[in-house]
Amino acid sequence: MTAPLFEKVALIGIGLIGSSIAINIRDRGLAREVAVATRREATLRRAEELRLGTSFHLDPAEAVRDADLVILCLPVGSCGAAAAAIAPHLKPGAIVSDVGSVKGAVVDQMRPHLPAHVHFVPGHPIAGTEQSGPDAGFLELFENRWTILTPLPDTDEAATERLRALWLATGAMVEVMTPEHHDLVLAIVSHVPHLIAYNIVGTAADLETVTQSEVIKFSASGFRDFTRIAASDPTMWRDIFLTNRDAVLEMLARFSEDLASLQRAIRWGDGDALFDLFTRTRAIRRSIVQAGQDTEEANFGRLKPRRDPWNEGAPGE
Amino acid sequence: MTAPLFEKVALIGIGLIGSSIAINIRDRGLAREVAVATRREATLRRAEELRLGTSFHLDPAEAVRDADLVILCLPVGSCGAAAAAIAPHLKPGAIVSDVGSVKGAVVDQMRPHLPAHVHFVPGHPIAGTEQSGPDAGFLELFENRWTILTPLPDTDEAATERLRALWLATGAMVEVMTPEHHDLVLAIVSHVPHLIAYNIVGTAADLETVTQSEVIKFSASGFRDFTRIAASDPTMWRDIFLTNRDAVLEMLARFSEDLASLQRAIRWGDGDALFDLFTRTRAIRRSIVQAGQDTEEANFGRLKPRRDPWNEGAPGE
Repeated sequence: MTAPLFEKVALIGIGLIGSSIAINIRDRGLAREVAVATRREATLRRAEELRLGTSFHLDPAEAVRDADLVILCLPVGSCGAAAAAIAPHLKPGAIVSDVGSVKGAVVDQMRPHLPAHVHFVPGHPIAGTEQSGPDAGFLELFENRWTILTPLPDTDEAATERLRALWLATGAMVEVMTPEHHDLVLAIVSHVPHLIAYNIVGTAADLETVTQSEVIKFSASGFRDFTRIAASDPTMWRDIFLTNRDAVLEMLARFSEDLASLQRAIRWGDGDALFDLFTRTRAIRRSIVQAGQDTEEANFGRLKPRRDPWNEGAPGE
Repeated sequence: MTAPLFEKVALIGIGLIGSSIAINIRDRGLAREVAVATRREATLRRAEELRLGTSFHLDPAEAVRDADLVILCLPVGSCGAAAAAIAPHLKPGAIVSDVGSVKGAVVDQMRPHLPAHVHFVPGHPIAGTEQSGPDAGFLELFENRWTILTPLPDTDEAATERLRALWLATGAMVEVMTPEHHDLVLAIVSHVPHLIAYNIVGTAADLETVTQSEVIKFSASGFRDFTRIAASDPTMWRDIFLTNRDAVLEMLARFSEDLASLQRAIRWGDGDALFDLFTRTRAIRRSIVQAGQDTEEANFGRLKPRRDPWNEGAPGE
């Protein structure tokens, strides 16, 4: 273990991302002190039981005192109010960051509150699972995943480099881009995919001709993949769609245009158009596996399913 | 091991499903003889190397001779021609089945060719991976998954029961329904999900504002889940959309209608509508895990990613 990168880090919010950062700092010795703040008392107690920090606070203003680095690990929609609450208590020279999935809106909401004597470096680790809360965090979450930093034109470069060092230490790779470009990229690789996953699950649940129990029983034919994504945290995702509206609507328009063209190919029996697309998409899957961003195991290497307890007379038992 | 269920089974086609059936018959002793037929010589040789049968044929007519059970394990679009080719050589009293993902069209295409002295019981195991070919098969593929049988009104019940016994012996659960209902159910749980996965991957690949390399790098944020499904066999899926056109278009219309309403909620900032849907969909995920149709592990219990060889200076190495 080398010398810690920071004396004191404050984590405001301790869900999946916050707790994974906390575990990294603790297990890799990246800071001497970690102050954890969260609004809900039960969550704070759980964070303490899990030893996710060295001090625990209901009031974020208290947590950020003397911190060299403050990371807001909150749904995007809560970042403005949190910035306002901590602003008067920030140490001069402190780095302030976040982990939100939208960057333009976070900059707009936080920046007006932050004093000139701190360094604001917004960030976004492209990592996660469908689970949430302080128990969901784990050490390897960021390993071999990208973290995007979106410093502003006037951000001190040394501050960006210090934050980059922290992310690199978690096993992440780091890329720097503008908030605007980040929001476009994430709209297509994350936000629209989540939206259509939520949507197909909703559509399936509302049919009259196919029962919900049939949808569940036969879900291994494709549907179940979408339900994992559609089980993501509702508050976090509501905020993402409300705050990255323009980029999401732009990408959604492209998606719908392409879908209409596929629909037409099906209606008119244009098998070649279908075959061409289905061949092209296969190559992209290969590139993702090649780039180490997904496993090559069939079905993601899914663990064997448990037996269905509702089918007691099931075969083979 | 009990007495075999059949004397001789003929498998026409030896891809993922055919080879998984072959392995089940061999390892569980479900038949004395298994004749494997496939059109491509290289595939036939590979099937022989893998010991997937007891005899191997390029001509399906030869394979079905004296078989008590013939299963077409082919893309839906090839079933009609295959039925015509084998029809004159079928043994009286033989059971003829298939594993196609569409049932109405398979019945329409096969039935006219089949002689009155055989029993036609169309079938569809709701199981698979994104991989194809004789090497993709494995013993556990059907375990705890549903197989749907769609006998016709005049099908002999005893034939349906004998086929059910074979599927039960592979570890599958069996449900019987009409071909029409099967096609509606599969349109929503499988065909439309595949279509929108293919579509989003195509949309992302065609953007000018976001590069393909960015799409691949940041795919762990949701996109990669869709690429697995969009890597499924192009021929098989072209045939599915061409042959289950009406049900797919019907379900697709519902999907698009719902998506338009979500789009409107985003445009007008209706956070409550988004939050309500995102909460409802979470419950469906829970039901699927509860029913044993998916793992409860985060990220499907994905295996750890390999390191990206293109990032040699990557952190943590």
